[in-house]
Amino acid sequence: MKEFELIDRLSRSLHTNPTVTTGPGDDCAVLDWGMADRLLLFKTDAVVEGIHFDPSTPPEKVGHKALARCLSDIAAMAGTPSAALVTLGLRADFDPAYLDRLYAGINALARRYDVAIAGGETTSNPERLLISVALLGWVGRGKAVLRSGAEGGDAIFVTGELGGSLSGRHLEFEPRLAEARWLVEHFPIHAMLDLSDGLAGDLPHILKGSGVGAELLGSAVPISRAARIAAKTAGSAKPPLLAALTDGEDFELLFTLAGRDAVPLLDAWKQQFPKLPLSCIGKITSEKGITIRDKHGARSLTVHGYEHFA
Amino acid sequence: MKEFELIDRLSRSLHTNPTVTTGPGDDCAVLDWGMADRLLLFKTDAVVEGIHFDPSTPPEKVGHKALARCLSDIAAMAGTPSAALVTLGLRADFDPAYLDRLYAGINALARRYDVAIAGGETTSNPERLLISVALLGWVGRGKAVLRSGAEGGDAIFVTGELGGSLSGRHLEFEPRLAEARWLVEHFPIHAMLDLSDGLAGDLPHILKGSGVGAELLGSAVPISRAARIAAKTAGSAKPPLLAALTDGEDFELLFTLAGRDAVPLLDAWKQQFPKLPLSCIGKITSEKGITIRDKHGARSLTVHGYEHFA
Repeated sequence: MKEFELIDRLSRSLHTNPTVTTGPGDDCAVLDWGMADRLLLFKTDAVVEGIHFDPSTPPEKVGHKALARCLSDIAAMAGTPSAALVTLGLRADFDPAYLDRLYAGINALARRYDVAIAGGETTSNPERLLISVALLGWVGRGKAVLRSGAEGGDAIFVTGELGGSLSGRHLEFEPRLAEARWLVEHFPIHAMLDLSDGLAGDLPHILKGSGVGAELLGSAVPISRAARIAAKTAGSAKPPLLAALTDGEDFELLFTLAGRDAVPLLDAWKQQFPKLPLSCIGKITSEKGITIRDKHGARSLTVHGYEHFA
Repeated sequence: MKEFELIDRLSRSLHTNPTVTTGPGDDCAVLDWGMADRLLLFKTDAVVEGIHFDPSTPPEKVGHKALARCLSDIAAMAGTPSAALVTLGLRADFDPAYLDRLYAGINALARRYDVAIAGGETTSNPERLLISVALLGWVGRGKAVLRSGAEGGDAIFVTGELGGSLSGRHLEFEPRLAEARWLVEHFPIHAMLDLSDGLAGDLPHILKGSGVGAELLGSAVPISRAARIAAKTAGSAKPPLLAALTDGEDFELLFTLAGRDAVPLLDAWKQQFPKLPLSCIGKITSEKGITIRDKHGARSLTVHGYEHFA
């Protein structure tokens, strides 16, 4: 059972109350506490030794990743992070010096985005270190960008370059907080999320949430240098485009806006963020499903990659 | 290294910001988001298979306990819970039907206190199930009861009965939310916490936070039936008073208020909560340390229990 199917199942008929304006299924929960100008964003995310990092990973990078993943979800709503709590599940043989370095990584990132580390808990998780971060942030009332707003004819954009993140970037990525807020301030963004499970895994969330489909142009998908190098050096590696579609842990923004805004956006973006690529990779269609076109023709895209049409 | 020593160590020089009015070291973080009438309470807590529950524990009770522990921390601040996120670390061989029952336990308690389950995440934790709950609540501005307000001459009270919780109560306890709010509405409570590590383990948090000491009367400490039965039936069991002081997982309220309010409180409490015992167990002293008096004389209380004075 895939994670999102399981969450779908568990989220059915859970208790809610009027403060919750967006519940399970988006990047963050959105809560209305009656403040005139803003809504609360609430998110948790966990990283686990042997799954999201290795015992040999420098602990500063583990701490960075643990907090950055949550910050990326706040970015996906065009929000601003404010305060975090850190829960540690400690191995039986934990080393306090390791935890000092882990916290140094968390703290450096927290300082950069002015996120208070307002507390934490430790518990025992004998076989492996687990770090769960709970994050509270906010977004201007009416400014949260959900996954459900995409419309037929929208242009689909992605920041940065995709694929190959596990060769290093997943431990060092910078959450796209400034970029997301700039986007929302300057253009009517229809739908947005942060890419954690790969374009092929995450684009369906926007499509399902919005009741639409998509056509992608294979040659427009930005492929990272790491994915290209892996394809050249390792015989068993994925082709670069497949890596860009399915590797996961990119933590780039995927969003849509009206087709007429696409060219003005690209022009303004180059001025604002000259070092960060922004790519228009296709368009939203009213027909369901995802088609990807490249030199081999049109293929159907699934969460595992593409398949030739029968 | 004890949990609270470790948290002390890790909490040093973490980034904070002006929204945080109470950070690491109290039952919840307290955040000021500029709302006229209230402050936010923010808390996380985790339970782990083999540590806080057994594989044979009915999953509904596991879910109940996971959420109830967080609710108890909100109670300790005299707050009201509002929304929770649930993070599951799933065993490699997890059973979706087990998780349905776990969520049923969470949901039943959430409904009773009108706590929205606003989302969740799942991750892999191959060897054992881990459930981390993040909870958001609120307290009236100026109404949060911290651990640091105890004064010499205060009376020390505890709700319910202590000890023996691991024989069953730790899976079924009801967080003292209504009782805590009633207390704060009717009496000036100086300091409060919820007992999770036993009276001997937790009272020092109030004393350290307030820069005071305490004298307890052994015969006034309310001992649970479970602790008395255990002492009679198991030859190796702790004496009942020692169990009440050190067993942990009681999730009762421990609080102090001015000595002159002690009798009026006891009278009003009996009217309001006739089924729940409230016990005055001693007084706050300006001298540091904890003394416990019983038929054996005066003894010094440590986190591990009491020791005869040399």
